[in-house]
Amino acid sequence: MNFSIEKYLKQKRVAIEATLDRLLHSPRKYPPIIHQAMRYAVFGKGKRLRPVLLIAAAEACGGKASDVLPAACAIEMIHSYSLIHDDLPAIDDDDYRRGKLSCHKKFGEAMAILAGDALLTRAFEVLSRMRFPKDGALQAKVIARITQAIGTEGMLGGQVEDIQFLSSRTQAETKKRLGYIHSHKTGALINVTLKVGAILAGASRGELKALDKYGKNFGLAFQITDDMLDKKEEKELTYPRIYGLKGSREKVKSLVRDANLQLKIFRRKGEILKELIDYFVQSRI
Amino acid sequence: MNFSIEKYLKQKRVAIEATLDRLLHSPRKYPPIIHQAMRYAVFGKGKRLRPVLLIAAAEACGGKASDVLPAACAIEMIHSYSLIHDDLPAIDDDDYRRGKLSCHKKFGEAMAILAGDALLTRAFEVLSRMRFPKDGALQAKVIARITQAIGTEGMLGGQVEDIQFLSSRTQAETKKRLGYIHSHKTGALINVTLKVGAILAGASRGELKALDKYGKNFGLAFQITDDMLDKKEEKELTYPRIYGLKGSREKVKSLVRDANLQLKIFRRKGEILKELIDYFVQSRI
Repeated sequence: MNFSIEKYLKQKRVAIEATLDRLLHSPRKYPPIIHQAMRYAVFGKGKRLRPVLLIAAAEACGGKASDVLPAACAIEMIHSYSLIHDDLPAIDDDDYRRGKLSCHKKFGEAMAILAGDALLTRAFEVLSRMRFPKDGALQAKVIARITQAIGTEGMLGGQVEDIQFLSSRTQAETKKRLGYIHSHKTGALINVTLKVGAILAGASRGELKALDKYGKNFGLAFQITDDMLDKKEEKELTYPRIYGLKGSREKVKSLVRDANLQLKIFRRKGEILKELIDYFVQSRI
Repeated sequence: MNFSIEKYLKQKRVAIEATLDRLLHSPRKYPPIIHQAMRYAVFGKGKRLRPVLLIAAAEACGGKASDVLPAACAIEMIHSYSLIHDDLPAIDDDDYRRGKLSCHKKFGEAMAILAGDALLTRAFEVLSRMRFPKDGALQAKVIARITQAIGTEGMLGGQVEDIQFLSSRTQAETKKRLGYIHSHKTGALINVTLKVGAILAGASRGELKALDKYGKNFGLAFQITDDMLDKKEEKELTYPRIYGLKGSREKVKSLVRDANLQLKIFRRKGEILKELIDYFVQSRI
């Protein structure tokens, strides 16, 4: 079981890295420094969780990985842009990211701001120029979904809430706000990623609905697991700090169980999505 | 002559302000602070040059202003995003913009970074959801054109070059780089703005070609005029500093003359575009 999912991941990652390399401009293209900063942020020890999920969702709905690789890589560019801007001194002020210097520590703050802007812009360029599907209306639809998920109603809303969070509120309010941050800051992008894979593969409404629920559970379970494994600073708002380690573990298990129930509609083609949530969430707690 | 163009501008600006107000989220929408910051940056004493140009280009090609207003406002959101990020301490470090505090001075650096990101994202959301044209393929095409104009091959490339500029280079190289900055940092967005208006109005190849040339001349002439009127710091690279005031004025006149020659193809419908370059450029020097 584990052997096969690891082989699957390795194979998909090779394709994702190659496609990212093709879709990002050469590091020698003028002005080179910005293309170098973009590539520095995108390439590294990333798990490529989001592009893998997009491909797996497309496959579960009868699509082909090769058709959706550009969309998968556009999502990864968006993820990279959000990390660059999150790490900036004015926001989270992180000097390191995935074991190497953060983009602004390596290239300076100005270049990091612009490299984030450029990755977001490039992502939409890739999405608007996809050769698959030929149907331009579907491309506009995919872009509409993604922008909503990463704008102030989604990822950026979660980021704003995270910055603004004041710990002096009541416990009930704290829980509500933690829920908002998780579902928006990380949940919304993971959720839309699965849906874009499904839409591109021509999914039915039932399949989209199942992936919506699976995606919400995956996103939250993944975030809680990350928080459980990370040594976060005391001041940071995390699930384990509010609900305890035991409560967090139980929550993750219940989310995973619920997520897997949704996969019935895909029959055997949902097997990979089940293994992915086991691998990225269940097996880590 | 002047009376009619001022009336035209006033009328279009009223429509643009109303559409921006409709397309931006309410300042009370959660989380309110980010929507307030976005609105703060968008509303003010802006000339609305770009949305007016988009509408005028569409009208010259037989289109209707009401059909292209959302696209015109998306372009203005992109322009606002670029100004917010340009003003940041790490980049141009400007405390004021159009006579009021810059976004980061008013809302803090973190919120300004995110408000810029959110305006860029919202612009693509608006473009992907336009009800006109119904043809989704045309929306994807418009998004592709805009992303290329504002990415590292366009506006962001110009911004990077501007940051990196070292004045110790030779005069020939200085001129070359100044040309690159102007055509990319401000020229590319103005140029694509006109083309988007034309594409949405179903322009012919000949009309697009004419607007391309008109747009390039307009962008450069506008930038030189701005530099001539601004009291820039000595260290800044500007056209008048390199070519002198007289040389700059002659250059503007020749650019305007060339731009107006392009408008023949539109016959009487090109009259507004002629008046616009007179108003925004010619009459100011």
